[in-house]
Parts: sequence; structure tokens; C-alpha cells
Amino acid sequence: MSDLIDQIAAIVGPQGLITGADVQERAADFMGFTRCQAKAIVRPASTAELSAVMKLCHAAGQTVVAAGGNTGLVQGNVCTPDDIQVSLERMRAVGEIDPVGRTMVVEAGCVVQTAQEAAEAQGLKFAVDWGARGSATIGGGIATNAGGNSVVRFGMMRDNVLGLEAVLADGTIISSMNVLLKNNAAYDLKQLFIGSEGTLGIVTRAVLKLHPAPLTTQTAMLACADFAAVQRLFVEAGRQLGPGLTSFEVMWPSFYEPMIATGKHTPPLPGGHGCYIILEMSGTDPEGDPARFEGVLGAMLEAGLADDAVIAASKGQADQIWAIRDDIPALFAFTAPSVTFDVSLPIRAMDAYVADLHERALARLGETMKLVVFGHIGDGNLHILLGAQPFTAETKHVIEELVYSGLKPLGGSVSAEHGIGLEKRDWLGVTRSPDEIALMKRLKAALDPANILNPGKVLQ
Amino acid sequence: MSDLIDQIAAIVGPQGLITGADVQERAADFMGFTRCQAKAIVRPASTAELSAVMKLCHAAGQTVVAAGGNTGLVQGNVCTPDDIQVSLERMRAVGEIDPVGRTMVVEAGCVVQTAQEAAEAQGLKFAVDWGARGSATIGGGIATNAGGNSVVRFGMMRDNVLGLEAVLADGTIISSMNVLLKNNAAYDLKQLFIGSEGTLGIVTRAVLKLHPAPLTTQTAMLACADFAAVQRLFVEAGRQLGPGLTSFEVMWPSFYEPMIATGKHTPPLPGGHGCYIILEMSGTDPEGDPARFEGVLGAMLEAGLADDAVIAASKGQADQIWAIRDDIPALFAFTAPSVTFDVSLPIRAMDAYVADLHERALARLGETMKLVVFGHIGDGNLHILLGAQPFTAETKHVIEELVYSGLKPLGGSVSAEHGIGLEKRDWLGVTRSPDEIALMKRLKAALDPANILNPGKVLQ
Repeated sequence: MSDLIDQIAAIVGPQGLITGADVQERAADFMGFTRCQAKAIVRPASTAELSAVMKLCHAAGQTVVAAGGNTGLVQGNVCTPDDIQVSLERMRAVGEIDPVGRTMVVEAGCVVQTAQEAAEAQGLKFAVDWGARGSATIGGGIATNAGGNSVVRFGMMRDNVLGLEAVLADGTIISSMNVLLKNNAAYDLKQLFIGSEGTLGIVTRAVLKLHPAPLTTQTAMLACADFAAVQRLFVEAGRQLGPGLTSFEVMWPSFYEPMIATGKHTPPLPGGHGCYIILEMSGTDPEGDPARFEGVLGAMLEAGLADDAVIAASKGQADQIWAIRDDIPALFAFTAPSVTFDVSLPIRAMDAYVADLHERALARLGETMKLVVFGHIGDGNLHILLGAQPFTAETKHVIEELVYSGLKPLGGSVSAEHGIGLEKRDWLGVTRSPDEIALMKRLKAALDPANILNPGKVLQ
Repeated sequence: MSDLIDQIAAIVGPQGLITGADVQERAADFMGFTRCQAKAIVRPASTAELSAVMKLCHAAGQTVVAAGGNTGLVQGNVCTPDDIQVSLERMRAVGEIDPVGRTMVVEAGCVVQTAQEAAEAQGLKFAVDWGARGSATIGGGIATNAGGNSVVRFGMMRDNVLGLEAVLADGTIISSMNVLLKNNAAYDLKQLFIGSEGTLGIVTRAVLKLHPAPLTTQTAMLACADFAAVQRLFVEAGRQLGPGLTSFEVMWPSFYEPMIATGKHTPPLPGGHGCYIILEMSGTDPEGDPARFEGVLGAMLEAGLADDAVIAASKGQADQIWAIRDDIPALFAFTAPSVTFDVSLPIRAMDAYVADLHERALARLGETMKLVVFGHIGDGNLHILLGAQPFTAETKHVIEELVYSGLKPLGGSVSAEHGIGLEKRDWLGVTRSPDEIALMKRLKAALDPANILNPGKVLQ
């Protein structure tokens, strides 16, 4: 082992270090297709240990890649054989929960679901929630500013973090463990570390903002004739339900119809409609909420905003509805080979964008083209899968060009919630101007002048 | 006039420049006690003009102080005779409103109330609202991360800005006019400019996030025996009303009783209680909300959480309740001379903090001591007025020491919503660690290496 690794071993102890062949025991992506290539994996047991490790790495010019639950989708934590990976897996404690101030202290390695359950046990809700909740960590969610299914109501991770602690490239510990909802005492430093994918610092602890847990949930599936109706429905749902509207998910027929054709699901509505919507309301009035939800949906049907609607009569039926939306394995099965996108654009522009993309993709890729669209429409976020045969590296590039070129004139984003990593780095210019990117590089240089933190990710 | 002023005049034209004695026609604080001391006031008509002006100032090492509606409370835009003031007062247009995506584009000089009214006309709500809405500007509100009366539900300015455009010290225009609710395409640059009080850039335009306008508002005043009951009431209100709880304001007897003794108001409840609360619920169900609010409050009274309660039966009665809370002239009249504070601390710690402050203040300041406490308790934010006779510069310092020294061990903030400016700069260390302040200075140096933007404010 090198001197540096020996020195790190002296700080973190045998439990804190993985080297040699053991490193490759670990997967490098969430599907397990690739193995970790790092020269070592360091597992600090405390912020102080990580700080000491970073001081050594900084002095040695050693590159460091932080890893959370390995559920990212943009190659944001891929390591080369020159990198050291830092895993926060030994720092996973849930600390104090304040039921009055509605805050929770956690270590960065804490699994999202663990934090959610700890809040729930106090009648509170940690409101950022996404499919990978069982493996993804709070620190990873902060580093990538995770989104998910309830952003329309609760915002993204950025909106649910009150304070945090991070270790800078040079080992400095920035402890901004603010528990206050309001704190205008100079610059809000935590914003630097949220969503910067481990390139400006490594998050070690956080203070999460909690909400009162909703006491009721109503779930429905609706079918609309076209996207114009979807928009009217969204506006009306906002007007009638206000913050009670906690999900507004849309599936195009290209998603819904193959999904119900799998035979795996219990479709609440038949195919043949223009769009399918999952609408969820959360409330605090067990007596009044069901009738209120029924009334609002009934009025929507009467006004012709939706063609058909089914309200889940039980938690089981609600789960059946969500199972269709969340069946990612089936989705991949009927679209592969394809490229997956996570874009955002103004809701008003979506219909024309999708129609135009379909037309251009068909012209460019021919009859083997497959386009599947669904997303968190309430957030302006579309997930798109686009594939064609033969699926070569060139096909992939053509597909990316097709999807992203249509976004730029709309002010859209190449990444709504997944981040940039390596995967989307070359497309950053679609969404950000040269002056914005230059300013980002100025920040990176100010915080990590030796470029040792997750180098090459996000920015070139 | 100097060469620099001549060059600026050539960019902004005669309408864009105020010099000489006309500068002092303008007040330097919202009470009009002091006059503007700047060497000139520059009023650009466009972002391009401001960019050109900043390029000149940067080359000349000329310091620049941005001004909004002049309603700040921390000497954040005070000018010396060496400074140029930049006023955005000629850039006040409301641009496009998207009723589906719920966004609004505004120029930074737009008055807050103008933006609110423009949203309202579309059935939408711009939710950041504070007393100075008729003069304060959106740009000033962004630069100071304004808070106000609805933070418990809608957050602060930071939570209601989706995108912005700013001019850096060197004249670079950073246009991040993002209209998307979700955009994880690399660093979220707008966060740098929100709440940094014009020290990192000058905000010229913004994209504001709007909400569906609530359709109902219920207002009540409640009286509690003590602060323990206030806390239980807050927890229960969150549980029962969820996001419907839009205000939870508390007045200590030291505020409420002298206020009703002025004879100016119609007190809904008599004095003699431990604490007074204004509780407001906003909803979207005109038929159901009034009964729901009554039911929740009735149950609270029955459970002994509150000793008494009055629900406003009309908008007029609600206004009467708020008039007590908002009568700042009367407040100043019965506390002067005093120092005004805007601190935040964990809700659970408030009662002991206030009791301890009272005891220490009495011991240190003697019988002329006056302590008045009220605040946005749902946000952890207390406004405190503390005075004593004779009121000298030394008294002021002793008073600041009394208030701030108790905050540090609680993780409290010397500024919940007003910012730092010059007024609180020397107390920043109460809330921020030396490492945090050093990192702030690193950011300031990276963005404004010549230190020409609002120099000496926020950071020393």
C-alpha cells in the first residue's frame, strides 16, 4: 500500500478501509452492471475522521469521490483506479427529533427510508420520497438535490434541508447545522453543497425539515381526451385542492397502454384515452376529506375536464394505481434498448414538444423508433424513453440530440432531478449559458482549487 | 463631474443619473431620519445598461451600493460619499405570467404589492408578504431574502424565486431566468444572490413562483395560560390544519397589554392571559372551511390548550385583530427608547430564553428596563424590543449583548429575516462559526475580488 493509504488507515482503522480485490466486490451502479474501480474505499466513522482524511488527500493531490446509496442515475459517483471513494455508510445515525420545531438531525449515511420512519414514529413526515428510498442515503439525496413523487407539494431536497455539515476539499469542517426555519445571518452556505454532486464538499450531517403527517390520502386515476384537458385539470386541481394536491402524475398512452398489456397490473381504466393521470390529495380531515375529494372530481367530470375517473376505495387499490406508474422493470423491458431522460420544461409547452419529438424521431430513426413519455407534470418534469434499432453509440447520440435540441428554445432543463454527473455533462450547455458555466467554474476553483473532489463530474 | 460619472452619463442618459444636491433629496432610511450621501445615484433602464456601468466601475475600483425600496432595517444600503448608489427604480415592469406553470417574470424594481396584485388578477398568489409591501421591491426582497407573515406556510423569498438575472461586480450578466420548478442542471447559482444583500451581485430580474390563491381565510385570536400551552397549540394546529395553517403569531402580555391600553384598537380578548395568538387558516373549500375551523378551535378549547378564543366573523374583524399585531408606530411609542431585534431560536427554547433575558436585563439595566416580545412563532422568529434609561451608545451595546449572548448556546440567529447589513455585522459571530465566515469571505473574494459591491456590509 502507498504511504497515503497507510496514513489514512491510521486515521480510520481497519474497519474504515477497503483495499485490493475487496473494492471490486462493490457495484459501481445501481443495476450492478459495473464494479467499483477505486484504489480504495474509505469509510470514516465521524466528521473528524473525514476531515483528517481530506487534509491528507488535499496535501497529496489525491482525488476523492463521495458515495451514498449508489442509486444515482447519471454516473455521478463513478471512480477511476486513481480515485479514492469515500462512503458515509458508517455514519448513519438518526439524532434528535424536535416535534415542536419539526426538525430531525441525521448523519449523511442514513438511509432515506430510515429517516422517513423515524419521523413517522413522531407523527411527522420527512417529505422527500422517491423509489430508491430503501437504499438511497440522505447525504446522496442532498448532494443530488433529489426530487420524487411529492415535489408539487413539498419541494425537492433543497426545500427540506434546514442545515448541514460538510467537509471541504482541504478538510475544513463547515458546520451549518441550523435548526431554524429562518436564518438570514449572512450567506446561506448550505446551498453550495445541495445539488453540487460532491464537487464542492462532502456532506456529513444534516438538519431536515419535517412536516405534520397528513391524516388522510385520497388517490384517483383520471383519463383525459388530450393534453389541453390535462392542463385545465391541473389548474382546476390547484384551485380546488390548494396544497392538498400532493401528486399530479401523467402517463401518455405510450406508457399506459403497453404497461396494462403486460398483464401484471389491475388497470383501473381501459386504454384508448388521450392521457392518464394519477391525482392524489392529502389532508387532515378524516371526516370531510373523502367527500370533498369526490365532490371536486365529480365537478371536474361534469365540466368535461376528464372523460373518466376512478377513486381508490382502499389503500390496496391506491397501491395498484401507483404500481402501474412505478413498474420501472416492466417499462425497461418493453422499451429496451433505449435512452432514459429526465427533462423539465414549461407545462404549457409539453404537448407540442412531445408531438414534435415524435415526428422528428420517426423521421430520423425510422420505424423501429419507440418513444415513451410520463412524468411529474405538476413539477414540469417529463421522463422520456426513446429507443431505436440498431442501438449503437451513434444511435444513442442521435437520440440525445433529438431530445435535447427541442428543449433549448423552451428554456427546458436536461436534468430535472437526476443531476448531471458524467452522463449529462456534455449537454449542460443546452440549459446553462457560457457565463453561468464560467461562474460555476469560478465557484469550483474557489472551494476546491486543486480539483480533487469528484473531478470531471458536472463540469468539464 | 469626474470622468467616471461622465462615462456613466453617456450610458444611462440624463434620466438615468442624479448628482449634486439632488442626491440628498433622497432619504437613506425608511423613517427619513438620514439623507443619501452617495456621490451619485445611477438609474439604469435595462440590464445591459447596468452591465456597462458595472464594467466601468469595476475598472475604476468604484464602489457600488444597490438600493431597492429603502425599507430595510439593518443599514444594508447606506452609502458613503465615496459610493455610487444603483437604483432599479426604472426597471419595474411585470412581465409574463404563466397561469398553468404558475410563474411570473418581473424586473427587480417592481414593487412587491404590484407583483402581488398582478398575480391576484390571474387567480394566483405571490405569497411573500410583509408590512412594507407598498414600497419594498422584489429585488430588495430577493437581496435580503425577505420573510413576513406567511413563512410558516409559504417559506421566505428564497422559496418563492425560481430564477433570476444578476449583474456581477465585473459587469458579467448571469441570466438564470429559470421558469422550472425542477432544474438540477449543475449548481443553483441563484442561491448566491438571494440573501447576500447586494454583496455578490445586483439582481435585475426574477422569475417568481406563484401559488393557487386560497379561496377562504379564517382568522382567530386565542389566549393561552402559558407558553407550554402555546407549544401544544402549535403542534395541534399543525396536525389538524396541515398546510392550511398560514399564520401562527404570538404576542406576549408585554406586547398585547400596552397595545390594548392605547385605546386605538378593538381588543377581541381582555388582558390577563399568559400569551395571545393570532391563528389563521387558509383553504379552498368555501362551504366546509368555516365549520372545520370552528370544530378544530372548539376541540382545542375543550382540550384545555387555550383558555379563550374569538373567531373573526368578518374581514373587518380579522383586520381589527391584525391591526393590533401590526401597529408598529404604537409599539415604538410605548417602548422608545429601545433596540429592536429580529432573532430566531428553537420554539421549545423560547419561554426559558425570554424569562432568562427578562431576569438578566432587569439585573443589568434596572427598573427603567422595558422588554416587549412578539413574533412569528411558527417560524421560530421573535421580535424583541429592549430599552432602558438613560439610552446611550453604551446602553445600546449592553442591550445587544444581553439579547445575543443568550442566543449562542441555543443555536439561535441574530437575524431571522432582516439580514445583517452594517447594523448586525459585529454580531455575526454569535450565529456563524469562524470557518463559516471564512468561507463566506472566500465566496465574496471569488465573485467580487475588488470588493466594490456594497463593501463592508454583511462581512467585515
